[in-house]
Amino acid sequence: MERSKYWMGVDVGGTKMLAALFDQNFKLLVERKEKTNGREGAKAVVNRLQTLIVDTLREAEVSRKQLGGIGVGCPGPVNVNTGVVLAAPNLGWHNLPLRKKLETELGRPVLILNDVDAGTYGEYRFGAGEQARCVLGLFPGTGIGGGCIYEGRIMHGSANSCFEVGHMLVVPGGRLCGCGRHGCLEAHASRLAVAADAVAAVYRGQAPALRELAGTDLSEVRSRTLAKAIIAGDEVVAGIVHRAAYLLGTAAASIVNLIAPDVVVLGGGLVEALEKIYVEEVRRAITEQAMSFLGRPVKIRAAKLGDRAGILGCAALAADAFGGKKRKS
Amino acid sequence: MERSKYWMGVDVGGTKMLAALFDQNFKLLVERKEKTNGREGAKAVVNRLQTLIVDTLREAEVSRKQLGGIGVGCPGPVNVNTGVVLAAPNLGWHNLPLRKKLETELGRPVLILNDVDAGTYGEYRFGAGEQARCVLGLFPGTGIGGGCIYEGRIMHGSANSCFEVGHMLVVPGGRLCGCGRHGCLEAHASRLAVAADAVAAVYRGQAPALRELAGTDLSEVRSRTLAKAIIAGDEVVAGIVHRAAYLLGTAAASIVNLIAPDVVVLGGGLVEALEKIYVEEVRRAITEQAMSFLGRPVKIRAAKLGDRAGILGCAALAADAFGGKKRKS
Repeated sequence: MERSKYWMGVDVGGTKMLAALFDQNFKLLVERKEKTNGREGAKAVVNRLQTLIVDTLREAEVSRKQLGGIGVGCPGPVNVNTGVVLAAPNLGWHNLPLRKKLETELGRPVLILNDVDAGTYGEYRFGAGEQARCVLGLFPGTGIGGGCIYEGRIMHGSANSCFEVGHMLVVPGGRLCGCGRHGCLEAHASRLAVAADAVAAVYRGQAPALRELAGTDLSEVRSRTLAKAIIAGDEVVAGIVHRAAYLLGTAAASIVNLIAPDVVVLGGGLVEALEKIYVEEVRRAITEQAMSFLGRPVKIRAAKLGDRAGILGCAALAADAFGGKKRKS
Repeated sequence: MERSKYWMGVDVGGTKMLAALFDQNFKLLVERKEKTNGREGAKAVVNRLQTLIVDTLREAEVSRKQLGGIGVGCPGPVNVNTGVVLAAPNLGWHNLPLRKKLETELGRPVLILNDVDAGTYGEYRFGAGEQARCVLGLFPGTGIGGGCIYEGRIMHGSANSCFEVGHMLVVPGGRLCGCGRHGCLEAHASRLAVAADAVAAVYRGQAPALRELAGTDLSEVRSRTLAKAIIAGDEVVAGIVHRAAYLLGTAAASIVNLIAPDVVVLGGGLVEALEKIYVEEVRRAITEQAMSFLGRPVKIRAAKLGDRAGILGCAALAADAFGGKKRKS
């Protein structure tokens, strides 16, 4: 009989790292958190990541031998063949051979994933994706991430992760994006873009509730702050959020015209705080802008797993890769 | 020993229908043409299509029994499960159960395909697609068609063909498209859009060579007419074509950011007549607008098979579907 295996999922975020150990039915056994502190440099972060993994195992009283493998989601594009993180600007990572480092230190097989791919896979397997044939994940937050599960597997390029939805051109000649180009979806519809418009509205005296909550400091405008300001009656803030959500829907409509997903899963900070607006506006944009034979059948769903989508997806993908059993897709 | 099988590929276009019989190595044996005359109505066209298929078999002296199956490419979206053509505006077709009709009449298995999917698959197997892991086909002509072969198979939705590249939104608030929306790629970069701009330039006295060739009649501006006017020195016409090709590249760059194709195959009338401009501008747009880690590895290739891409793709797909042998992908 096969020895019972455990799987670990790790999500490396810009501010915190989350690690969790699951049994073979993906029941969560232990979950631990750690600050990322990306400014300390790649080496310090990788060391802390290793310690987090070892501590999580120890807390669960599971030996390394019993660990089937580890999936690690990273906030940037990755090479899916080599396990190199191409770039993670929040962490100052650039061509970091993370798989090699972790495998050498830990002696267990490691799978390196893009965090949004992992989160979309988590929702596909255990959440709002309903194990559909084609699931599109859209995660508007500080940036805008995307992922696609097609016939049970993450869509990626021959070498690299893809579905860089945030860098689709949606406003030709538009706002400056972090990538250096202009008019990317992310430059117009991320939390950062929304917050920038919102603090300008505060400055103009059009958002009294938000003035109370955040003043004109963009850093103070979190997703929940926007939600509170809208509930308190800031109509201009509501308009800014509706517009950003509709623009996300515009990009979604173009993607629907291309790959005809069965389910679009919306997640991330903005959607968690403002679910109704996001589901409504994305649905409206798809209805108005996608070809009707492609747009009509699409289900729009808010993500169900929150922060756990990533660690669940990572653990399940590690099991797919190293479990020796082939999943039917 | 298995009886030697033959495969037929049929391409139903807006103006002509093309049928060809291939042996099991996809060597062309007989090719026949017929006018479509879509205005005569669906029934007349389907009858002529049946006659064309029967005549092609007869000319090749191949019996129906020896025919393994028929792939039929149609100019519009199709339901890949039921073989219904959802819409083919050029032919006045609407929810036409073409597979059922043809199978009943001919007694052989029939596969109904979108024509651009079939052409992209033809180029993937036998032409410029180089059997790459992910091939994106872009075919600008009267409209703009797209297709994607991902890991050896046409990407489609759970029910319907997809990759409706022509209806990606590229100019918010832009020109009226045939689909009723505004700003679609097709409304700005198809041959029709280019021709409309070109005859306006003629009217303004800015395109003397095109005036000689076509006057201000949009119907007279074929792809080759544009090429001739450019060679004869009409710089304004050259500018219009360059802009349309770059806009196609803009859409291609967004798609590259999403699905990271290995090869982009450019085909269709405009590319056949103006290959250099198209390859150059699409490459430039991808370089400028796609994420560099995704854009850099992409090969841009002009299609190699011309009119035969569709019939070859249809025949090969029929063999995949009905041949009993599973192709490795």
